[in-house]
Amino acid sequence: MLPRLYFRRRPEEVEGLRSQFISSSCSVSYRNTGPLHISHGYKARLVDINGIEYLDTRNNVAHCGHGHPEIVRAITYQVGQLQTNTRYLHPHASLLAKKLSDLLPRSLERVFFVNSGSEANDLALRLARAYKMQQKGATHDARKDHTIVIDHGYHGHTLSTLDASAYKHRQGKEIDKCPAHLRIVPCPDVYRGVHSIKKSLPRKYDASLHKDKEQYCESEIEAANKYASYVEIECEKYPVSAFLIEGGMSVAGVILPPKSYLRRCIDAVHKAGGLYIADEVQTGFGRLGKCMWAFQYSNENEGGVDEIIPDIVTVGKPFGNGQPLAAVITTPCIASAFESLGVEYFNTFAASPVQCAAGLAMLHVLSSEHLQKNADDVGNYLVELFSELQSRCEWIGDIRGSGLFIGVELVRDQHTLEPATEETSFVCSILKDKYKVLTSVDGAHENVMVIKPPLVFSRADAALFVSCFEKALLVDLPMVKDRLKYFGRTPT
Amino acid sequence: MLPRLYFRRRPEEVEGLRSQFISSSCSVSYRNTGPLHISHGYKARLVDINGIEYLDTRNNVAHCGHGHPEIVRAITYQVGQLQTNTRYLHPHASLLAKKLSDLLPRSLERVFFVNSGSEANDLALRLARAYKMQQKGATHDARKDHTIVIDHGYHGHTLSTLDASAYKHRQGKEIDKCPAHLRIVPCPDVYRGVHSIKKSLPRKYDASLHKDKEQYCESEIEAANKYASYVEIECEKYPVSAFLIEGGMSVAGVILPPKSYLRRCIDAVHKAGGLYIADEVQTGFGRLGKCMWAFQYSNENEGGVDEIIPDIVTVGKPFGNGQPLAAVITTPCIASAFESLGVEYFNTFAASPVQCAAGLAMLHVLSSEHLQKNADDVGNYLVELFSELQSRCEWIGDIRGSGLFIGVELVRDQHTLEPATEETSFVCSILKDKYKVLTSVDGAHENVMVIKPPLVFSRADAALFVSCFEKALLVDLPMVKDRLKYFGRTPT
Repeated sequence: MLPRLYFRRRPEEVEGLRSQFISSSCSVSYRNTGPLHISHGYKARLVDINGIEYLDTRNNVAHCGHGHPEIVRAITYQVGQLQTNTRYLHPHASLLAKKLSDLLPRSLERVFFVNSGSEANDLALRLARAYKMQQKGATHDARKDHTIVIDHGYHGHTLSTLDASAYKHRQGKEIDKCPAHLRIVPCPDVYRGVHSIKKSLPRKYDASLHKDKEQYCESEIEAANKYASYVEIECEKYPVSAFLIEGGMSVAGVILPPKSYLRRCIDAVHKAGGLYIADEVQTGFGRLGKCMWAFQYSNENEGGVDEIIPDIVTVGKPFGNGQPLAAVITTPCIASAFESLGVEYFNTFAASPVQCAAGLAMLHVLSSEHLQKNADDVGNYLVELFSELQSRCEWIGDIRGSGLFIGVELVRDQHTLEPATEETSFVCSILKDKYKVLTSVDGAHENVMVIKPPLVFSRADAALFVSCFEKALLVDLPMVKDRLKYFGRTPT
Repeated sequence: MLPRLYFRRRPEEVEGLRSQFISSSCSVSYRNTGPLHISHGYKARLVDINGIEYLDTRNNVAHCGHGHPEIVRAITYQVGQLQTNTRYLHPHASLLAKKLSDLLPRSLERVFFVNSGSEANDLALRLARAYKMQQKGATHDARKDHTIVIDHGYHGHTLSTLDASAYKHRQGKEIDKCPAHLRIVPCPDVYRGVHSIKKSLPRKYDASLHKDKEQYCESEIEAANKYASYVEIECEKYPVSAFLIEGGMSVAGVILPPKSYLRRCIDAVHKAGGLYIADEVQTGFGRLGKCMWAFQYSNENEGGVDEIIPDIVTVGKPFGNGQPLAAVITTPCIASAFESLGVEYFNTFAASPVQCAAGLAMLHVLSSEHLQKNADDVGNYLVELFSELQSRCEWIGDIRGSGLFIGVELVRDQHTLEPATEETSFVCSILKDKYKVLTSVDGAHENVMVIKPPLVFSRADAALFVSCFEKALLVDLPMVKDRLKYFGRTPT
């Protein structure tokens, strides 16, 4: 009885109701150029109400693809059986906790299920506080311990995780942007950051663009050392309870920490008695291709020596392939510091048999369809295609990332690195309107195309995407610029 | 391929995996007397893996009943179509926002969808902060504004909502239990609180039990005034940004604010420039029978004069009948204070077409099956049955609540009100083990049976429950006490 009525709504009505009843703080993509009325999806495709298919290069939640039949079946079956809380025992929650732990380093074997990445990072901060309290004794004021976070990082929308999200501090004008106990260190961006690496290209030093840039580094190691030193200084100066960092920074424009950065930071944090919280909400479950988790990327990078092992890991977005499912995983020792406080942790919706069925099915498909390997393969192919394009196109400043987590940074000038912000926005619009490709733009200057599609993204999808991207950049963009120039308007 | 394998797990294996991989802070009900392996459910019944049926008097999430076919169909259909974020337009989210707003007073017409009640209250506090900032100007330090909350209240598990949950402060030993900006006022409990109402029964004044009790009140109005005065004093002394209160306090043991309490508090808070946040996570959507929302209970109580209208309402638990779905609803004016900060509010999972389908279907069934009316009817019947029992049983100290939100407080002595904590726990266990009835115990002394079943709870269910309860209390409890006495052990 229900669904038929509700689906037959004219787009104008849907838009009208939305703008009347949903706060405008909840953004709609392509608001100015025509928002999308998506009806259904499959694999890396979304289909709108007119039947137009879009290639989805940005959805990092539908990990195994939109509407994956096996996952849909698992959810569908379980919804009809039982959806209740974890105060009753159910095989799904127990098994999912085990399977999640099995995918992580051996020491990480205590799971807390939650509903979202925000709830996960919020709880991770609480665990770190409990641990510090245990170390220091009950009289210790854990609220005054410092949390070190990365500039341009994003960790969630709750009050505590917003505080920890330096990127949000810049976005708006909420006061008290940075509470006293939050220490923000520079983002270890070796392309455009404070300590970037000198490339073969000669670059002009433009003071207005690089006003806080100290000097170019000769190598990745040198940059890593310089970036890590900020964390080391914080650890010497302040009582630190946690170092919270995304394995791959998506909002910052796909920044993977340079070689040896994580190792040095973690050592300093541990020496100060703090914990390393690996935020894998965006990057976990094989997205990086080479490794299951982004924190392992540094191991890969360094030949597996001195393995990086987080104290706490948070996962979210792709975990339930769309169903709200997230988790915090930690060591028995840290969990027991929290447990000894005697406070129950109850989360009404988290890890109901339905959410867990989605999680189990996602892990099953991830493995049976070898999607991590596919991410690695297609990711390499994408980098290859973009590199080839870069040789013919001066807009592409940098191509970085791993697996299906790739950033393509557009610049107006390869020397000054002037960000091509308006051009990137234009390319994103034209890709949607003309080529039916959905993309995502991020980075401090909003000039990085962030590619983070479902892991079923194929080589054919990659080829289609890059060819559309090329046309947008080399045909449509110059054409528009030319037209605007003809009419005497500033090309934006 | 997936589900069959996962369901065939022996109970011991499920328990073993759970205790190894899930933190023990995540409690299991009936842990000591035999936790339940629930397999499926229908209406107000849960069925375990051995086919044993339990009457569920405590699940306040499966609002329209476990596994309601119409809701299951709505979810099932939508999962196969699309589950993606609100950056695309979809009829479900727009319609659900409208329908939710339509159920509330006219001024509340801006919706923010979130995943959980915790996220909702967290965002509500943030909205209140933004509003205060707008009133006071950008230099105002909104972090120092005070939030007034009720003792024994519960508002969620994120760091900010935990701070606001006085009940949690007592439960554990996390330090900094009450941050400086949180002002906790006494719970307006007229039975056992600081200002209780003098009943016809003579009561001994036991200093150890009532050590902070000032005096008995003659009437509900007198108690309400005394309780409200705490809020009024806070509002005179401190800069207040929010007064956060559950319409019906569940964890506190089913406390509905006495007549005129809310009105007086709200007036004081508004005078101080603060906002009234109505936490309807437990009590919303008709549970109280007489009214759709618990904040309206006071209106009912006062004949609709001077209608209570919250500035912000939060909803959660029953909204998706099990699917994680929650929301914050506020006025255009408060929403616009937040929107003017220029910070996007994005919530990955919230209000996906699947969650919204669940919400729409829940509202549809709530209305088409007249469940609010059923709550009223069966709730009155329950109170009748319990009252009749009370006349024959000295354990029952108080029966309170409205609709299917009822508290039955057990005491050892009708005069001293000595809480029958151990006896309540025993009754709860025996109801599960012998009578196959699932119940919930809460209240500051853990001596209140909290009855908050799915709203499909029938008169037959009510009669069955009270007859089992009677046997547990009048047959089993004395028998056990007698046996323990025979063996010379303390009856607990």
